[in-house]
Amino acid sequence: MTASDPRITALDTYDIRFPTSRELDGSDAMNPDPDYSAAYLVLRTDAQDGLEGHGFTFTIGRGNDVQVAAINTLRAQVVGRSVTELCADPGSISRDLIGDSQLRWLGPEKGVMHMAIGAVVNAVWDLAAKREGKPLWQLLADAEPEWLADQIDYRYIEDALTREEAVAILRRGRAGRAAREQVLLARGYPAYTTSPGWLGYSDEKLTRLAREAVADGYTQIKLKVGADLDDDIRRLRAARAAVGPDVRIAIDANQRWNVDEAVAWTTALAEFDPYWIEEPTSPDDILGHAAIRTRVAPIRVATGEHVQNRIVFKQLLQAGSLDVLQLDSARVGGVNENLAILLLAAKFGVPVCPHAGGVGLCELVQHLSMFDYLAVSGSLENRMIEFVDHLHEHFTDPVVMRDGHYAAPTAPGFSAQMKSESMARFTYPDGEFWAADLAATADAAEGREAVA
Amino acid sequence: MTASDPRITALDTYDIRFPTSRELDGSDAMNPDPDYSAAYLVLRTDAQDGLEGHGFTFTIGRGNDVQVAAINTLRAQVVGRSVTELCADPGSISRDLIGDSQLRWLGPEKGVMHMAIGAVVNAVWDLAAKREGKPLWQLLADAEPEWLADQIDYRYIEDALTREEAVAILRRGRAGRAAREQVLLARGYPAYTTSPGWLGYSDEKLTRLAREAVADGYTQIKLKVGADLDDDIRRLRAARAAVGPDVRIAIDANQRWNVDEAVAWTTALAEFDPYWIEEPTSPDDILGHAAIRTRVAPIRVATGEHVQNRIVFKQLLQAGSLDVLQLDSARVGGVNENLAILLLAAKFGVPVCPHAGGVGLCELVQHLSMFDYLAVSGSLENRMIEFVDHLHEHFTDPVVMRDGHYAAPTAPGFSAQMKSESMARFTYPDGEFWAADLAATADAAEGREAVA
Repeated sequence: MTASDPRITALDTYDIRFPTSRELDGSDAMNPDPDYSAAYLVLRTDAQDGLEGHGFTFTIGRGNDVQVAAINTLRAQVVGRSVTELCADPGSISRDLIGDSQLRWLGPEKGVMHMAIGAVVNAVWDLAAKREGKPLWQLLADAEPEWLADQIDYRYIEDALTREEAVAILRRGRAGRAAREQVLLARGYPAYTTSPGWLGYSDEKLTRLAREAVADGYTQIKLKVGADLDDDIRRLRAARAAVGPDVRIAIDANQRWNVDEAVAWTTALAEFDPYWIEEPTSPDDILGHAAIRTRVAPIRVATGEHVQNRIVFKQLLQAGSLDVLQLDSARVGGVNENLAILLLAAKFGVPVCPHAGGVGLCELVQHLSMFDYLAVSGSLENRMIEFVDHLHEHFTDPVVMRDGHYAAPTAPGFSAQMKSESMARFTYPDGEFWAADLAATADAAEGREAVA
Repeated sequence: MTASDPRITALDTYDIRFPTSRELDGSDAMNPDPDYSAAYLVLRTDAQDGLEGHGFTFTIGRGNDVQVAAINTLRAQVVGRSVTELCADPGSISRDLIGDSQLRWLGPEKGVMHMAIGAVVNAVWDLAAKREGKPLWQLLADAEPEWLADQIDYRYIEDALTREEAVAILRRGRAGRAAREQVLLARGYPAYTTSPGWLGYSDEKLTRLAREAVADGYTQIKLKVGADLDDDIRRLRAARAAVGPDVRIAIDANQRWNVDEAVAWTTALAEFDPYWIEEPTSPDDILGHAAIRTRVAPIRVATGEHVQNRIVFKQLLQAGSLDVLQLDSARVGGVNENLAILLLAAKFGVPVCPHAGGVGLCELVQHLSMFDYLAVSGSLENRMIEFVDHLHEHFTDPVVMRDGHYAAPTAPGFSAQMKSESMARFTYPDGEFWAADLAATADAAEGREAVA
């Protein structure tokens, strides 16, 4: 083992949880009290450069430990690998981890195990981009079409996208790239904001935040719906009054409905001109989304944050289920699978408006959308990234919003790195915050027992 | 807390692994070396009867610890519950666990977290049937249609199956039940066997086991395919020669192919008259299965052992993707979700031929098929349960095969209980077998180092 052939020496994991439920940040019709959390990992190497790869799965609290356990099972397949080889071809580890025959039984390619693979794969890309000295969006946009096409696993999607088609899309995507990069650097990538729309917020807070969003330059906001129709009508009326007729209002049901319910409820809100209905039903229901889309047109149908893999996205596109594809940076098998999803979307001509928010999802996904603009779709039309103003302060390279746009990151890497002091404070259950909080809860319980 | 209102006092978990990879039992095109394992749990109560509820998720080795961790996260929601209430309405805990908003993020309703819920729900049914003094098939077949219909979660399937339709199917299912029960008790439920067909077996072993299967009364065998076409042709020719033209031979690709490959490969094997092609592609690919089915007809298409939940089964039926539905007792959310799947299959007129094998899957799933025969489909036509002759000796109430049929279990419960001596011996990594095995491996490694 020499300095010229550095190895991965450690995959360290962390269970990090933020007590967001106490402010009802992130509350929606299915998730009343999320504690935004990250099952987090750091890849360490024996290279002289001291660079690390950071990655994580976003969860909303309970079960973050299961997610950490899943990442731990991958350690043996990562530690000892050549850093140079890994960074030259992150697709190799993506294929190896997805192909592990015993772990595959736990999915395949879905849920806890698949998200764990995504976290590791994303950490490899973070390391690769740092070693290259580029933000990930730029590394991807600078890459050769053939190399990018080889990063994709075509298993189970070849009936919709072949390697040859991927290369052709990526070659076409290069035309005019320099001009687009100028636009991106000058203006950033458009965003919409969900910050006003959480279900737990009062009408007053909703109205105030909606006005602030418009003042901050956003041209689209999003409201959570689906718990109570009368409430939704009142809140949408207030929001529409606050932002006026020209700002788009998307609505998001977080999988609350059956097919018929989705159609009836969405139709009942049509007078407020919702731009899209997001997650009207189960993310698994490809045919259900197609039926809903037909019946609520011209209101658009959007989904993706819980779509488990490229195979389901392929079918959502084949079945005509979607107007807007909302990929997530940390739900599927990492950058490699998201490359497949971006190319599928381009092939079918469906705009990608990624899911973000949570912990660090904005930080990650901006790189994918910027790459899409520069080298795949080549378009910003009807494309925006979700923005939620939570927890960015915990990252070393947090997103920068300017006039309703994500400014292009300039630091090398995937913007995935959390501050070490935040990690120490919010590690569950032993970090400073949780240790104090759990002790206080225990004391209170003892007090109640003493009284009783 | 009194004896008349007993509570669940513990949910104990066990990581149990059998070293099956050493004999290539269970080897197929995607799973070359499985160590059949169970993430196992026992519900204990303070009732005087001393009865326990047993349940498990089947895995194939690595990652069994992740599955155990997932079951552990459910403990807090189970311990302390009233045993009487739980057993009177297992649907209540099924809904609560699936509805946990924070854990739901890890699925929803798929993969590690969903299988963990299934294991707990199945343990509740085991306990309920033991307390009732009936084998589970009988408890289900004796239940009122309305009560059974209330055990089902209609969320996301109501466009294909309403509660009213479920009640109607179950009422119709009662006609002629007594006569069918006589048939079941006298003859058992038909089975087919996969024992001859593992990919790691020699042609000689395949031929010998295929002949033995026919001699034992089986009218269908199954062969694994998909690793090498020339091998498959040779093995199918040998199998067809061994069993003659009248015994059905199903083939199983274990998700090996893309859509076009599946069609080409299956067509290349058509001369040997395969009865069905099983898992030709990803279990997530509803539209892919539909395309394959159209193109390989009259060869039937079967899938289900990896289908994640009722929502995907609903679509496989809606899209006409299946000739044979292969539910699994321990992949989805337990008995409650399998009730939904049995009723969906009945509604669409598709026969159910469950997946079994592994650890204890034969023991569990026989109850569901027998219930289906007595009270849902009312038919044995083209219906059989998979049988694999592995690991039954570890169960206290193992399946009994007679002339190619599963004999109806008579012991109360779900036949889910593993012998305590087997659990002790094969607990990973501290049980007797693994402690010795891991020590030997460590010694051998030290020996190699000393030589080097």
